[in-house]
Amino acid sequence: MTLRIGVVGTGMMGQDHIQRLAASVLRVEVVAVSDVNLEQAKRVGDGVGARVYADGHELVGDDQVEAVLIASPGFTHEEFTLACLAAGKPVLCEKPLAPTIDACLRVLEAEAAMPRRLVQVGFMRRYDAGFRAMKEGLDGGQVGQALLLHCRHRNAAVPPGFTTDMMITDSVVHDIDVTRWLLGQEIVAATVYKARRTSHAPEGLADPQMVLLETAEGVLVDVESFVSCQFGYDIRYELVGETGTLSLGEQSGVLVRQQGQYHGPIPADYRERFGDAYQAELQEWVDGVLRGEVTGPSAWDGYATTAVAEAAVESQTKGDRVVVELVDRPALYA
Amino acid sequence: MTLRIGVVGTGMMGQDHIQRLAASVLRVEVVAVSDVNLEQAKRVGDGVGARVYADGHELVGDDQVEAVLIASPGFTHEEFTLACLAAGKPVLCEKPLAPTIDACLRVLEAEAAMPRRLVQVGFMRRYDAGFRAMKEGLDGGQVGQALLLHCRHRNAAVPPGFTTDMMITDSVVHDIDVTRWLLGQEIVAATVYKARRTSHAPEGLADPQMVLLETAEGVLVDVESFVSCQFGYDIRYELVGETGTLSLGEQSGVLVRQQGQYHGPIPADYRERFGDAYQAELQEWVDGVLRGEVTGPSAWDGYATTAVAEAAVESQTKGDRVVVELVDRPALYA
Amino acid sequence: MTLRIGVVGTGMMGQDHIQRLAASVLRVEVVAVSDVNLEQAKRVGDGVGARVYADGHELVGDDQVEAVLIASPGFTHEEFTLACLAAGKPVLCEKPLAPTIDACLRVLEAEAAMPRRLVQVGFMRRYDAGFRAMKEGLDGGQVGQALLLHCRHRNAAVPPGFTTDMMITDSVVHDIDVTRWLLGQEIVAATVYKARRTSHAPEGLADPQMVLLETAEGVLVDVESFVSCQFGYDIRYELVGETGTLSLGEQSGVLVRQQGQYHGPIPADYRERFGDAYQAELQEWVDGVLRGEVTGPSAWDGYATTAVAEAAVESQTKGDRVVVELVDRPALYA
Amino acid sequence: MTLRIGVVGTGMMGQDHIQRLAASVLRVEVVAVSDVNLEQAKRVGDGVGARVYADGHELVGDDQVEAVLIASPGFTHEEFTLACLAAGKPVLCEKPLAPTIDACLRVLEAEAAMPRRLVQVGFMRRYDAGFRAMKEGLDGGQVGQALLLHCRHRNAAVPPGFTTDMMITDSVVHDIDVTRWLLGQEIVAATVYKARRTSHAPEGLADPQMVLLETAEGVLVDVESFVSCQFGYDIRYELVGETGTLSLGEQSGVLVRQQGQYHGPIPADYRERFGDAYQAELQEWVDGVLRGEVTGPSAWDGYATTAVAEAAVESQTKGDRVVVELVDRPALYA
Repeated sequence: MTLRIGVVGTGMMGQDHIQRLAASVLRVEVVAVSDVNLEQAKRVGDGVGARVYADGHELVGDDQVEAVLIASPGFTHEEFTLACLAAGKPVLCEKPLAPTIDACLRVLEAEAAMPRRLVQVGFMRRYDAGFRAMKEGLDGGQVGQALLLHCRHRNAAVPPGFTTDMMITDSVVHDIDVTRWLLGQEIVAATVYKARRTSHAPEGLADPQMVLLETAEGVLVDVESFVSCQFGYDIRYELVGETGTLSLGEQSGVLVRQQGQYHGPIPADYRERFGDAYQAELQEWVDGVLRGEVTGPSAWDGYATTAVAEAAVESQTKGDRVVVELVDRPALYA
Repeated sequence: MTLRIGVVGTGMMGQDHIQRLAASVLRVEVVAVSDVNLEQAKRVGDGVGARVYADGHELVGDDQVEAVLIASPGFTHEEFTLACLAAGKPVLCEKPLAPTIDACLRVLEAEAAMPRRLVQVGFMRRYDAGFRAMKEGLDGGQVGQALLLHCRHRNAAVPPGFTTDMMITDSVVHDIDVTRWLLGQEIVAATVYKARRTSHAPEGLADPQMVLLETAEGVLVDVESFVSCQFGYDIRYELVGETGTLSLGEQSGVLVRQQGQYHGPIPADYRERFGDAYQAELQEWVDGVLRGEVTGPSAWDGYATTAVAEAAVESQTKGDRVVVELVDRPALYA
Repeated sequence: MTLRIGVVGTGMMGQDHIQRLAASVLRVEVVAVSDVNLEQAKRVGDGVGARVYADGHELVGDDQVEAVLIASPGFTHEEFTLACLAAGKPVLCEKPLAPTIDACLRVLEAEAAMPRRLVQVGFMRRYDAGFRAMKEGLDGGQVGQALLLHCRHRNAAVPPGFTTDMMITDSVVHDIDVTRWLLGQEIVAATVYKARRTSHAPEGLADPQMVLLETAEGVLVDVESFVSCQFGYDIRYELVGETGTLSLGEQSGVLVRQQGQYHGPIPADYRERFGDAYQAELQEWVDGVLRGEVTGPSAWDGYATTAVAEAAVESQTKGDRVVVELVDRPALYA
Repeated sequence: MTLRIGVVGTGMMGQDHIQRLAASVLRVEVVAVSDVNLEQAKRVGDGVGARVYADGHELVGDDQVEAVLIASPGFTHEEFTLACLAAGKPVLCEKPLAPTIDACLRVLEAEAAMPRRLVQVGFMRRYDAGFRAMKEGLDGGQVGQALLLHCRHRNAAVPPGFTTDMMITDSVVHDIDVTRWLLGQEIVAATVYKARRTSHAPEGLADPQMVLLETAEGVLVDVESFVSCQFGYDIRYELVGETGTLSLGEQSGVLVRQQGQYHGPIPADYRERFGDAYQAELQEWVDGVLRGEVTGPSAWDGYATTAVAEAAVESQTKGDRVVVELVDRPALYA
């Protein structure tokens, strides 16, 4: 049994997914790709023997396409996701579900009216072995109730044009999702603190920052967001519970003893760090769809994450605590 | 050459110091002890062959006493320190220098009028090998300018009667001092966040908390203060600089592989964790005094730390950011 | 493009492989299985829709079968591998290639007469990310020439009937292969030392042992073989070079702080530890065969490993150093 | 109460001890020093206000000298130790007790005839916190009976003139003592294996080597002796017991994240690694002597260690296993 999918968007993220689907995901075939940059779409599509469209809506309408992966720019996510819902096709939409709360709500309402979920949002960290072990430890009662969560999210560098609000919407958005999923509760407020600015930050970027999140049950979450840290891609988490703490383990690799030091590697970027997570995300999505289920991060998760991110961006400007207000959770996401 | 000292206060802290002085500090002799609890003072003093006083002022006035260590309750520190200054005797005063800003300022002014420093405050972490290596790394430019500092300060449990403000004045006060010393700059604001309360906290204690400190140059410092963490005495620091981070190493000990796990020890309390630091503090103080110098944490450090602690305590109540205002730094502490 | 394979042997190892092939290996289909236990073969074969044979030779002869995986008991490996060679079909033979040197030589000679390699032996550690990073470090000159290699090979427990020679032929055989591959040179002598016997060893088993291997260029290799270690499946390696050492990193997982200790997990068995390596082995074998290549551990590796193992077993009895003599290496394996 | 001691030998080791005694050991005074190099003895002795002798025997005879520390070259240890015994003065003799078995036996016999021990041999590792925790774990039954012991003894480099037998008598001799002490049993045989020679070894030195020791109860001990390892002073131990293993923890210090790596320090030499152990050794010796006891490594330990070292040196030449034969243990050392 093989799932025939179409991929909307053949930029870097789309190409990554297509290559991964072809090389290492089972029971799936990429039968169509689309991009407004038709030439790029052709080059990528030809590599995997897929039909090529300039318009994502035509791809969604293609009868051969049973499910859709959306990897086009964020502002287009709403329209393609709604098109998939209209066509009754399961869709894996790269994060964000949509860049604004209103756009997210439109998707949410459309799906909430349906008998079952079709939309999954691409928060791949939930598929990482370390994060999963952490959640298993917490849910298994290993350290009692969660009280605090410390997160480090460091990138070696960012491309020119990376803006201060993107530190939230592009980077911390992952920590927002992990927090909600790991703790099983919503975030009710966000406060952003700007630290001393590194001289390695691109012009105009307030880097690094500390984002403080408060959950419905009072768990306090601090996220260090540092996108010009120079030394690597460094993701670290420590969850503090009533009787102990759980931390993500070091990435192992090989330990070297040399010239008066022992040393080990830090991943270079998110692809190296989360390559296995991306693959698990795709494989589980494919297998779920083949079984008729969508179980990963939902449109509700996409909406709630965008709502928290928007509050944090507002706090960046106002320099103050911003409360997060969510609509009632539709029954579909109970 | 031997320094003859008197110890004011023979409670737990005083006894610890006296035992350490007798067992493992060179070039020093405890010749006098005092306590309002005369019986306790006698028991302790007899153990080391010291003269015994009920009144600390008599001890300070004893001609045989060349220098004084104050380990009596915090509210008495001011009067004994002032007495030492009046007598021209070097004094190592356990933290805090005094419990209020005004009291600290009276000591500061008294000393600032003298030709050289006589007062040292007992912030022993500055004498810990790990903290020293961290400062050496930062000062040596190993990671560029400091941007953020993450601190964990966890105690297994606290005695009954421990109050919410003591989480600052008794515990975080060490992190305040380390921050100022490590970064070489003053703290200008404090904000306290209360996390979800652990069910293991004593009645009425808001435990754990996160204290956010901001320094003069914009370094952001977060201190987790958790005094009922159950699992041990756990002090961890990570300093984030422009090109890398510096962390306190794990305490080594012996690593065990057993029953499906590898495991290593966490210290039980501050005596186990900082025993070597206390000894180094005392030895360096004794040797400095014998050379005619006092080089450790100064009355200014004691004052500034109390000022920041007071701001943090105010923030605990107000639930808001409180600015720290310091008087001009006297020339003696330049 | 899909490779149609047959699996000889549907015992534990065969079932593991079949399950892994079905669940997580791409571009392969199991079209036939065989076992002398026909009922078991049927149950397993039906699960994946494969034809079922009682006789492995019939499976090899099946026109639908393009390549063969042999997972039957070791003493049958020779006959089935020879049958594959006669049929010109690529074969992945679980270790050992054959249990005796003579049997290995018969396979070697049969293949050496052919124009290209068809046989691969199932030494999966070469596909483990940690071992690969170690080899990359050594080959990249990170620590200069290799001088010593320390290996720990620990199993929690072994089934009844596990014999002293099986500590070599079943367990250390992996370390023999890794040594040859990692160092790129043959082993010329083996000496076995029996340590104090653990009270947890099954009746009659001399457990643990230390196996000393010497390579052609004088590298000294010590392998601790301990199959009743109780605490987990613990594989550790340290390679000592002229300017530094390379060690396999700890398996990461989640680090817990609790009850006076920090602790992390040790794998329970070889499936947990080497699951990813088995999968990489199968995927790379399938993809190689589809490209017309066999690049993994060769019949020569299978022969040389058996020769060293036989020397070590002899040393177990004689209690002395036994020299390994190899035939000339056929040109096919240059 | 202060112990007045004399130090025989003012070379590097003697100066180290004298400096440590003056700077950081309590209840002791160095009142006399001696060296055949009288000028050196004067320079060193004047620094601490000690009387100076050219002849160690005169120092031993000095009425002011209550106990003696011998740090002169190994071949002189016998005569000075015997002189101390004759004078009834406690003596701490640097390792070795004497360079030959016969010389050790003469000391042993002289002391065995006395009513109580006077001689301690300078095996300082027994005073290291890590080794002590390991012994405590083993003796406390944490991992059951000991079965194997893996030791790494690495020096960055050695001075010119360092010979192959000195790899045993100067370096491995510490591991021999630790093995006997940790396991509480004698070593009965030694076998030395020479590994591939590093290109960084001084002319004529067979470096590195593996020394295999067998104990009376069958525990197998392997010691890697590598004195030109280039990268630091690296001492690591793993004890394998019936239910688990105990390893020396990493030296902690500060962990740095930088340029794609995390890294921590390895000590540069034995002084950095064992500075605290040397101090504990001296302090405990002084305090023991003041109480009228000598409890550290005995003349028997010195003799047995030399006997094992001699067997290992013989094995270096013969390339074979050499049995260790000890005389009966005198009652004094029961």
